Amino acid sequence: MTTNSPSDIQAIIQQIIKFRDERDWEQFHDARNLAMCLNVEASELLEVFLWKKPEEAKIEKIEEELADVFYAAFLLAEKYGFDVKEIVTKKLMKNAEKYPIEKALGSNKKYDEL
Amino acid sequence: MTTNSPSDIQAIIQQIIKFRDERDWEQFHDARNLAMCLNVEASELLEVFLWKKPEEAKIEKIEEELADVFYAAFLLAEKYGFDVKEIVTKKLMKNAEKYPIEKALGSNKKYDEL
Amino acid sequence: MTTNSPSDIQAIIQQIIKFRDERDWEQFHDARNLAMCLNVEASELLEVFLWKKPEEAKIEKIEEELADVFYAAFLLAEKYGFDVKEIVTKKLMKNAEKYPIEKALGSNKKYDEL
Amino acid sequence: MTTNSPSDIQAIIQQIIKFRDERDWEQFHDARNLAMCLNVEASELLEVFLWKKPEEAKIEKIEEELADVFYAAFLLAEKYGFDVKEIVTKKLMKNAEKYPIEKALGSNKKYDEL
Repeated sequence: MTTNSPSDIQAIIQQIIKFRDERDWEQFHDARNLAMCLNVEASELLEVFLWKKPEEAKIEKIEEELADVFYAAFLLAEKYGFDVKEIVTKKLMKNAEKYPIEKALGSNKKYDEL
Repeated sequence: MTTNSPSDIQAIIQQIIKFRDERDWEQFHDARNLAMCLNVEASELLEVFLWKKPEEAKIEKIEEELADVFYAAFLLAEKYGFDVKEIVTKKLMKNAEKYPIEKALGSNKKYDEL
Repeated sequence: MTTNSPSDIQAIIQQIIKFRDERDWEQFHDARNLAMCLNVEASELLEVFLWKKPEEAKIEKIEEELADVFYAAFLLAEKYGFDVKEIVTKKLMKNAEKYPIEKALGSNKKYDEL
Repeated sequence: MTTNSPSDIQAIIQQIIKFRDERDWEQFHDARNLAMCLNVEASELLEVFLWKKPEEAKIEKIEEELADVFYAAFLLAEKYGFDVKEIVTKKLMKNAEKYPIEKALGSNKKYDEL
């Protein structure tokens, strides 16, 4: 972070790192394993919606599984020293080119179908 | 947010919402679809590591795919009005009970195997 | 296989193994990597349905992505010497206990909610 | 199937359909939901390998989760009337063009990097 303003993200990452280091788990956390973990957690979130309408899914479960997704995603960001705000901004700019407003407006098509 | 300090997470979410609304995409973003999107993005990140050693994976691709994961995850958080810091803190506390330090230290086992 | 009758599954697996061995790819195919591959392929299939109604998804893409899923799944079955018919039968019997007909009839609930 | 030889795959699919119909579950099984189910099951298989070496993963769990993957994959094949052997053969031929032997031999690269 290049500013002096408090950062939510740095605070979250610090909590996660503390949790990890208290258990000496960094040894398992190579980037490939973290990417596997992220997929397992994302899929547990998906399962909350399986066979259900969105409004039937239990909100406490969604909250927990989404928290696990952030856990793995922030660990990956920290592993590579990514600034989360910066990489999201950069990707939105790239996606803005793939999905120009005039073509993408109100469309559910993938960029290569637009 | 209950504080007056600027939040980097709120800033990211505002950017994402702007991107979404300029394209009139909210109509497609029910929570179930966002959970599907999150899984697709998490899996594209996993693919960067497929058949490879962690250090062979291309860092620019990791950055892009991880940004897409955050995009979907933040949209879900926003959809439910979750405070990301709060839900991660809550889940870490729950996981601390499932993985007490003295049992989990240096172990790669799942909580039901500890 | 313990019978003399031709098996279509054995025929598929033989084709896949031939394809793999012609490229000398077995060296990359430990079970963990195959499980990753299976997830990547399953997710590419999911992407065909993303933001769409089931009937909007392109059938040729579904066919191709599902074929890739079977490719990875059969490689895993072969790796462990599983008889696919046998393991599916066994799992259906186990699921029949978790989802007894009188409780599960017409219900979209998970077994622990029934 | 166009032959008179017994088909393992048809036998498995018949078992699965029987299991499904006894529970009146076809109503939930649109293709999109089945693709979600397939991803959830593939990810449960991936979880068996999470943080572990391939040989540390429990074989009974692998067997069960792989059976669930086949369950969802065969339901999708049946939904579209796909002949599994035919679609896999077709995809292998397509992949043989993307991965010509002379280029792909012993390589872990994706086709667009070869």
